[in-house]
Amino acid sequence: MTAAFPWSTQAIVAQALAEDLGPGDLTTRLCVPASQRGQAFVAARAELIVSGLEAMEEAFRQVDPAVKCRRLVADGDCLGAGERAAIVEGPSVAILAAERTALNFLGRLSGVASHTRRFVLAAEAAKRPAPRVLDTRKTTPGLRLLEKAAVRHGGGLNHRFGLHDGILVKDNHIRAVGSVAAALDLVRLGAPHLMKIEIEVDDLEQLQEALAHHADAVLLDNMSPAQLQLAVATAERFFAPGPRRTLLEASGGVTLANIGQTAQAGVDYISVGSLTHGAVWADFGLDWS
Amino acid sequence: MTAAFPWSTQAIVAQALAEDLGPGDLTTRLCVPASQRGQAFVAARAELIVSGLEAMEEAFRQVDPAVKCRRLVADGDCLGAGERAAIVEGPSVAILAAERTALNFLGRLSGVASHTRRFVLAAEAAKRPAPRVLDTRKTTPGLRLLEKAAVRHGGGLNHRFGLHDGILVKDNHIRAVGSVAAALDLVRLGAPHLMKIEIEVDDLEQLQEALAHHADAVLLDNMSPAQLQLAVATAERFFAPGPRRTLLEASGGVTLANIGQTAQAGVDYISVGSLTHGAVWADFGLDWS
Amino acid sequence: MTAAFPWSTQAIVAQALAEDLGPGDLTTRLCVPASQRGQAFVAARAELIVSGLEAMEEAFRQVDPAVKCRRLVADGDCLGAGERAAIVEGPSVAILAAERTALNFLGRLSGVASHTRRFVLAAEAAKRPAPRVLDTRKTTPGLRLLEKAAVRHGGGLNHRFGLHDGILVKDNHIRAVGSVAAALDLVRLGAPHLMKIEIEVDDLEQLQEALAHHADAVLLDNMSPAQLQLAVATAERFFAPGPRRTLLEASGGVTLANIGQTAQAGVDYISVGSLTHGAVWADFGLDWS
Amino acid sequence: MTAAFPWSTQAIVAQALAEDLGPGDLTTRLCVPASQRGQAFVAARAELIVSGLEAMEEAFRQVDPAVKCRRLVADGDCLGAGERAAIVEGPSVAILAAERTALNFLGRLSGVASHTRRFVLAAEAAKRPAPRVLDTRKTTPGLRLLEKAAVRHGGGLNHRFGLHDGILVKDNHIRAVGSVAAALDLVRLGAPHLMKIEIEVDDLEQLQEALAHHADAVLLDNMSPAQLQLAVATAERFFAPGPRRTLLEASGGVTLANIGQTAQAGVDYISVGSLTHGAVWADFGLDWS
Amino acid sequence: MTAAFPWSTQAIVAQALAEDLGPGDLTTRLCVPASQRGQAFVAARAELIVSGLEAMEEAFRQVDPAVKCRRLVADGDCLGAGERAAIVEGPSVAILAAERTALNFLGRLSGVASHTRRFVLAAEAAKRPAPRVLDTRKTTPGLRLLEKAAVRHGGGLNHRFGLHDGILVKDNHIRAVGSVAAALDLVRLGAPHLMKIEIEVDDLEQLQEALAHHADAVLLDNMSPAQLQLAVATAERFFAPGPRRTLLEASGGVTLANIGQTAQAGVDYISVGSLTHGAVWADFGLDWS
Amino acid sequence: MTAAFPWSTQAIVAQALAEDLGPGDLTTRLCVPASQRGQAFVAARAELIVSGLEAMEEAFRQVDPAVKCRRLVADGDCLGAGERAAIVEGPSVAILAAERTALNFLGRLSGVASHTRRFVLAAEAAKRPAPRVLDTRKTTPGLRLLEKAAVRHGGGLNHRFGLHDGILVKDNHIRAVGSVAAALDLVRLGAPHLMKIEIEVDDLEQLQEALAHHADAVLLDNMSPAQLQLAVATAERFFAPGPRRTLLEASGGVTLANIGQTAQAGVDYISVGSLTHGAVWADFGLDWS
Repeated sequence: MTAAFPWSTQAIVAQALAEDLGPGDLTTRLCVPASQRGQAFVAARAELIVSGLEAMEEAFRQVDPAVKCRRLVADGDCLGAGERAAIVEGPSVAILAAERTALNFLGRLSGVASHTRRFVLAAEAAKRPAPRVLDTRKTTPGLRLLEKAAVRHGGGLNHRFGLHDGILVKDNHIRAVGSVAAALDLVRLGAPHLMKIEIEVDDLEQLQEALAHHADAVLLDNMSPAQLQLAVATAERFFAPGPRRTLLEASGGVTLANIGQTAQAGVDYISVGSLTHGAVWADFGLDWS
Repeated sequence: MTAAFPWSTQAIVAQALAEDLGPGDLTTRLCVPASQRGQAFVAARAELIVSGLEAMEEAFRQVDPAVKCRRLVADGDCLGAGERAAIVEGPSVAILAAERTALNFLGRLSGVASHTRRFVLAAEAAKRPAPRVLDTRKTTPGLRLLEKAAVRHGGGLNHRFGLHDGILVKDNHIRAVGSVAAALDLVRLGAPHLMKIEIEVDDLEQLQEALAHHADAVLLDNMSPAQLQLAVATAERFFAPGPRRTLLEASGGVTLANIGQTAQAGVDYISVGSLTHGAVWADFGLDWS
Repeated sequence: MTAAFPWSTQAIVAQALAEDLGPGDLTTRLCVPASQRGQAFVAARAELIVSGLEAMEEAFRQVDPAVKCRRLVADGDCLGAGERAAIVEGPSVAILAAERTALNFLGRLSGVASHTRRFVLAAEAAKRPAPRVLDTRKTTPGLRLLEKAAVRHGGGLNHRFGLHDGILVKDNHIRAVGSVAAALDLVRLGAPHLMKIEIEVDDLEQLQEALAHHADAVLLDNMSPAQLQLAVATAERFFAPGPRRTLLEASGGVTLANIGQTAQAGVDYISVGSLTHGAVWADFGLDWS
Repeated sequence: MTAAFPWSTQAIVAQALAEDLGPGDLTTRLCVPASQRGQAFVAARAELIVSGLEAMEEAFRQVDPAVKCRRLVADGDCLGAGERAAIVEGPSVAILAAERTALNFLGRLSGVASHTRRFVLAAEAAKRPAPRVLDTRKTTPGLRLLEKAAVRHGGGLNHRFGLHDGILVKDNHIRAVGSVAAALDLVRLGAPHLMKIEIEVDDLEQLQEALAHHADAVLLDNMSPAQLQLAVATAERFFAPGPRRTLLEASGGVTLANIGQTAQAGVDYISVGSLTHGAVWADFGLDWS
Repeated sequence: MTAAFPWSTQAIVAQALAEDLGPGDLTTRLCVPASQRGQAFVAARAELIVSGLEAMEEAFRQVDPAVKCRRLVADGDCLGAGERAAIVEGPSVAILAAERTALNFLGRLSGVASHTRRFVLAAEAAKRPAPRVLDTRKTTPGLRLLEKAAVRHGGGLNHRFGLHDGILVKDNHIRAVGSVAAALDLVRLGAPHLMKIEIEVDDLEQLQEALAHHADAVLLDNMSPAQLQLAVATAERFFAPGPRRTLLEASGGVTLANIGQTAQAGVDYISVGSLTHGAVWADFGLDWS
Repeated sequence: MTAAFPWSTQAIVAQALAEDLGPGDLTTRLCVPASQRGQAFVAARAELIVSGLEAMEEAFRQVDPAVKCRRLVADGDCLGAGERAAIVEGPSVAILAAERTALNFLGRLSGVASHTRRFVLAAEAAKRPAPRVLDTRKTTPGLRLLEKAAVRHGGGLNHRFGLHDGILVKDNHIRAVGSVAAALDLVRLGAPHLMKIEIEVDDLEQLQEALAHHADAVLLDNMSPAQLQLAVATAERFFAPGPRRTLLEASGGVTLANIGQTAQAGVDYISVGSLTHGAVWADFGLDWS
C-alpha cells in the first residue's frame, strides 16, 4: 500500500531506518567491502507466533533493493526456538545496516501476536464457543496498523482502528449529554447509517437504559465476573423470548489469570488492552550461513 | 526541535494522531458541543517513573493549540498510584480527541523509565560505585529518541543512538576482516578522530587481542558473572601497574535477577536490551474535574 | 486538525497555494509596496449556500499570518447576491497573493453545498418526513473531507468516507463469493462488531435473499420509482408484523427531476453522486474597500 | 515526473488514495481472496473527450504495481457512450481498491476536456480563424496542472499557471500605483526580460493609455461584444498602418451562449473561467470481463 | 511563504538544521544549563554585501521560537569588517545549536550578493547606462530561490527561475527542429501568449535568421567583444530606422576581467554563471556579549 | 539509501529538480518530440577531481527512469579538460530536463573535491607523513553529506557530521562552565562512553590545563605556525617519555599559502573551512553525440 499514508508500513519502516542509520553505518563502511555478499537466516530464539514479516522485508528492501528475503513461514504461524522464519541474501553491508531495524519490527509485532494467542487460548479453554478477544486503542504510537494486524495473527479480532470508524459512547460523552438514554437518542440522529452504536455502562441500571434505547452494543466497564453474569442475564431477559439483539462486550482489567472467568460469564466479546500494552518482544536473531 | 527530523517528537506525535483520529472523532462530534470546555487531570494508576510529558503536551497542542497543559511533575520523577502528573484545560472535544494518543505516549515511555529504574537500583544495591546501566538499539521502531530519553529519566545511560554515532565492531565485522587484531587496525585507519573504537569479544583470548591492539572499549558478549570477573582481572593485569585504559561493557541476557552478580564482576558498563524491549506500559488515566 | 493528515485542510490549502504562487507573485511584487495594507470583503455574486470558510481563512493565514479574516456568516448559511461572507484585512500583497486560492475553495465548496440543498429541498417537497439525501465517494480527488462537509452544510448526510469505515458489498464482491447469501454470511464472520453490513441488490430476488440473511442495510441499485416501491413493500412484508429492521437506500441516476418520485417510494436514504460530481462553483468575489 | 512536486500527478494521486483507502478496503478484504486476478474495461458511459489517463494509471499502480493498465485511446480523443478507454488487469483486490479513485480523476478531467471542446467548437463555428480559448486560474484546488492539461486536451490554450509565470496587471495593481500608464512604466523596469506585460482595462480610455505605454497584451474586462468591437478597432487604429502589436484578450462572463459573438468581435484570445469551474464530470464505469 | 514549497526558506532551513543537529547537540547539552540565556551579535568579518537575513532568522526560530533576532541592516546593505548585522537573544543552548546553520546561510548568500555587486560595478564602470547583469540556472542545488534573491541584493537581475517560466530555445532545440527559423515558427504556435521567445545563436547568420523570424530576444553565445559589437550593429540595422525591437543578451565566459568590454559592445543584458557558481562565502561570526 | 532521510541524495535531488522544472520544461515540450531519443557525454571542461556521480545519475533517473547513465570514471578520479565522466542515453526530453540539475551537482561537488585535493597535496609536499586534512561544518546548507563525501573523494578526512556525533568543547562552552578543567571534568561525566572529548584552546596555558585533565584531543585555535610548534612541543613534553596520547588539531585561517608551514609544525590534523566554503565549481558540460 502506498507511502502516502502516514501510517503505512513503508513510512514507518523508513522512519525507523532513519533513526538507526542517520548519515550511515560507520563500522560496516570501515570493515566490510561493498562488494561482499552474504546469506543469513532469521530465526526464533524462543517459541512464538510470527508477525511483522512485511515490515522486516521492507526494511531490507529500503536499505538496498538488491537484498532478497524469502519467507519460510507466514504471519500467524507458531515457531519453536531455533526455527527459521526467513532467508536473507544480498550485499552484506545492506543486511548489516538493516538487521537491527528488521528484527525490532519482528520482535515487537511477534510479541503482540504471541501475547494475544495466550489470551485467545485461555478464553477458549474456559468456554466453547468462546467470546472473541478484541484489542483496544492502547497501541504503541506509530504502530497501530501493524499491531492490529499482529492481534489478528494471534487470533484476536480488531476493535475500532480509531475515533473515526466506530461509535463508542463513553462516560464523558454521557456526562456531556445527561444520560445514557439521551446520548443514545442524540447519537442515533447523526450517526452514519452503516455504523452501529455502542455505549459504555457501569451498572445494570445503565444497561437497562441502554437496552431500552436500542443500543446496538454495550461495553460493560470494569465489571467482576459475577456482575457480568448478571448483565448477560439482564440482556437475555430484555429480549426474551426472542434472540438477544444487543452485543455485550466486557472490558477493563482483563488478565491471563481472569479471562477464563470473564469468558464464562457469557459475553460476546472481551477487549484486552494488554494485548498491545502488556506485550514484550519475542526474541529473533540473525544467523549468518 | 523542528519537525523536519523524521524522528522528532512533533513528527511522531502527528503520525500517532493521524492513526487515531483519521477523518475525525465521530462520537464526540455527535455528543459534545464544540463550545464546551473542560478540565482534567492526568494521574498515575500505579507507582511509576514519569517520562513522556513533552509528547503528551504535543498531542494536546496539535489537536488544538487552545488546550493548555500544566505539568505538576518533571520527567524522571516518581509518582505513586493516584498522584497527578498534569492538568489539562480547554475545549472538551479536543481533550477527548487527544486523550488516548497522549496517554499512549505517557504509558509507553513511563513504562521504559520505570523498568530502567528497577535495573539501576538493582545494580546499585549490589555494588558501589555501581557500573552504569546502558540501553541498546533494541527500541520500538519510530520511538528511539523518546525511549532513549526515557532511559535517562529512569537513571540509565545511552549507548549509541544508531549506526552513525559510534563504532562497535561485532562478530560479523571481525569475520569479514579476519581477526580482532586485523579489524582494530583497519578501523583505526578510517575512524573519525573523535570516536573511540569498541569491539565485541566472546572469550579471553579475543580480549587479549583487543587489549594488545588498543581497543578503547570491549563488549564482553554473553559471559557469565564468573567469566566477566576473569575478563576484568585480565584487563587489569594488562595495564598494571598503570590504570586500566580500556573500558569494559557486559552485554547479553542481563535480567533483574542476575544484574547484581554482573555488577559485582567489576565491569564499567552493563547494557540491557530489556530496558526497552522488555518494558510494558505504566498505567495513566485522565480524571475529569 | 493537524497537518499530518494528507487530507487535512492545512495540507490541501498548502498544496493549492503552491500551485498558484510557485516562486512568488511577480506582478504584485513589482506594483504593490510591501508595507501597504488593505481591507476587502468576500461577497457572493449570486444566491448560494456557504461552505469552505475554514479553507478560505487558512489560505490567507498561510500566505501571511498577519492577514486577519472575520466571518460574517457561518457555513450552511444562505447568502443572496451581493451579500458579504467575510472581511479580510492585512498586507495587500498577501491578500492579493491568497485571493484566487481562497475564492477557489469557497466557490467549489459552496457550489457543492448549494447543489445539495436543492436535492434536499426537492426530496422534502415530495414527502414528509423525507428520506435523507446521502453523498457518495464520487468526490473531487484531494477534496473529499471538505466536500463531505459541504454536503452536510447543504443539509445532506454523509455515506462512507472511504473503503475503511463502512461495509458495502457490491456486485463484484457478490460475484467473487457466489451469491448474496454467501457474501452476507462470509462478511458477518469477519466484520468489525461495530459496523453494519450493507449489500447492493439489483432485483427483488436478491433483496429477498439479503433480508433472509440479515443484511443491516440494502442498496437498491438503479431501480425505477416503481421498482423501489415494490422493494419497500417486499421489505415491509418480510418483517411484518414487526417493524422493518433493514434500512433501504436508493441509488443510481438520481437527478433533481426525479428525486421527488424516488422519495415517494418510501426508502430511508437516497444517495446522489451528483451532489459532488454534478456541482459547479458558486460565484464569490473580493471587493476592496 | 518526480513526486517531489507538491502538485505532481504522483502526489495528488497518493493523496486521493489516502482519502479513499485509509487503513484499508474492509469489504474487499472480507470477500475477495488475495490471489484472485481479474480483468476489467474502463468505458465511457456518454460521449466525451478523454483526459486523465495518466492519473488513472497511477492510481492503479500505486495500490499495486502488479496491476497493468493498457490505454486504448489517448488524452484528447473523443469517445462515444460504451466505448472503452483502457483495459486493467491484475489482482482483483487492488483493482477494486483503486477503482473509485481512478474513475474520479478520469471523470473530473474528462469533464473539463469535454466542456472546453464545446467552447472551442462554438468559437470556431462563429469565426475563422477563431480566437484561441484560454483557461483561467479558477481551477479546483490541488488539480491545477491536471485541469490545465485537460483544457489542452479539449483544444484550449493555457493562460498563466500561477502568479509566478506571467505578468497580469489588474485593477488593484493599477489602483496601488495610480494609473495604467504609471503601472506599465513601473512594471517594465522590473519585469523579467523574457516576460510580456498584460494589463486589464475596463474601458477605451484605459485601453488608449495601455497602447500608448506599450502594453504587450491587454485584457478587456467584462466588455459586451459591441464594446469589444470598438476596442479592437481602437487598437487597430493605434498601430495603423502597421500591424497591430498588442494582443487583445476578452474576459469575463463568457458562456457557451455568447462566445460566438465574442469571437466575432475580433479579439485574439477569449479566457473562460467556466472551462474549469463550470465543468461537471464525464461519466466512466468499470466493466469486468 | 508557506512550507508547502519544497524550495521554501522554511523547508531548506529545516533540512539544513536536520543535517547539523541530528538527534541533538551533545556538547551543549552536557555543558550549558537549559535555563541560561545569552545575547550575541552577528558581525561581518570582512567587507561584504548582506543577503540571507530571513534564512538566518528562520534557523534560530526553528530551533527555538524563544530566540529573538533583531536585524540591524537590510539585505543588500554593504557592511565593513567588524560591523554588525543582527542581535540574537534567547536561550544559549538554542543559539549555540542554530549558530552554524544560520551563519552557513548568511555566508553563502552574502557571498553571492558580494560577488554580484562586483560584476555590476564593473559593468557600470565601463558603460553608462550599463547593460543589466543577469544570473543563470547554474545555482547551488536546493538554494535557487535564495541565491536568486542574493543576486538581486547584489544589484543583478534574475533570468528564468527554471524551465517553466521562460522560453529559451537552445542549440539542442534548434537541432531537434532543424533551423533557427523553424524553431521560432514552431515555438510561437504553442508559446503561452504572455511569454517572449528567446533563442540562442552562435553567429551572425543565425542572428539574421532570428531577427527575420521575430525573436523577442537573442542570446549571443560565447561571442568575443568584437563579435558582440557586430551583432549589435546587425540588429540595429535590421530594425533601422525604427527602434531595435529584439533584446540582445551576451552569455558565456564572462569574468570580472572582461565584463567591461562586453558591456561596451552595447548589448542589453549580460548573463554570468559565476554570480552563483563562482562565489565563495562572505565571512560572518557570532560575538557573544 | 532511502528517501526518508531529509538529507538523502534522493531527497536533495528531488528538491533541486522541483526548483528547476516547476510545472515543466516549456521550451522542450514545444520543440522536441516525446519519442526522440538521444545520447550525450558528460565531459570535464577543465582538469578536476570528480565527485557527485550518484547525484548526477539520480537526477536523470528521477526525471525519467528510462534514461540510462553509464559511469566512465569513479568519484575521486582525476579528469583532464575534455575527458568524459559518463554516457547518458534515453528520451531527449528527459535528458534536456535533467541536464542543468545533474551538472549543478557535479560542478559543485567536483569543485569541493578538487579544492580539497589541492590542500592535501600542499600538506603532503611540506611534510611526510603529512597531517590529515579535515573539513568543518561550514558546508552548503542541504548538501552536507554530499560535500563531506566530496572531501573524502579529494583525499581529506571528515570531522564531525554535526553536533550529534562528536564532542567539541568550544570557547562558549568553557565560558558557561568556568574553565577548561571544569568543562572537561563535567563533560566526561555525561559523555557517551564511545566518544572522545575534544576541547578548543587559545593558548599554551589552556593547553596545559587540557592535557592535565585528560582531553582526548585538542583544537589549537587560530595559532601561528610558531605557536603551533610550541604547542606540539608542550604536549610531547607532557607525556614524555611515553607516547603522546592527546591528538592535536590546528584550525583557523588555513589557506593554500600557509598549510605547508602549518603541516610542518607537527600537528596530527589540520581542519580547513575553505574545503567547502571556499570552493567554486568545477566545469562540466553535456556533449550530444
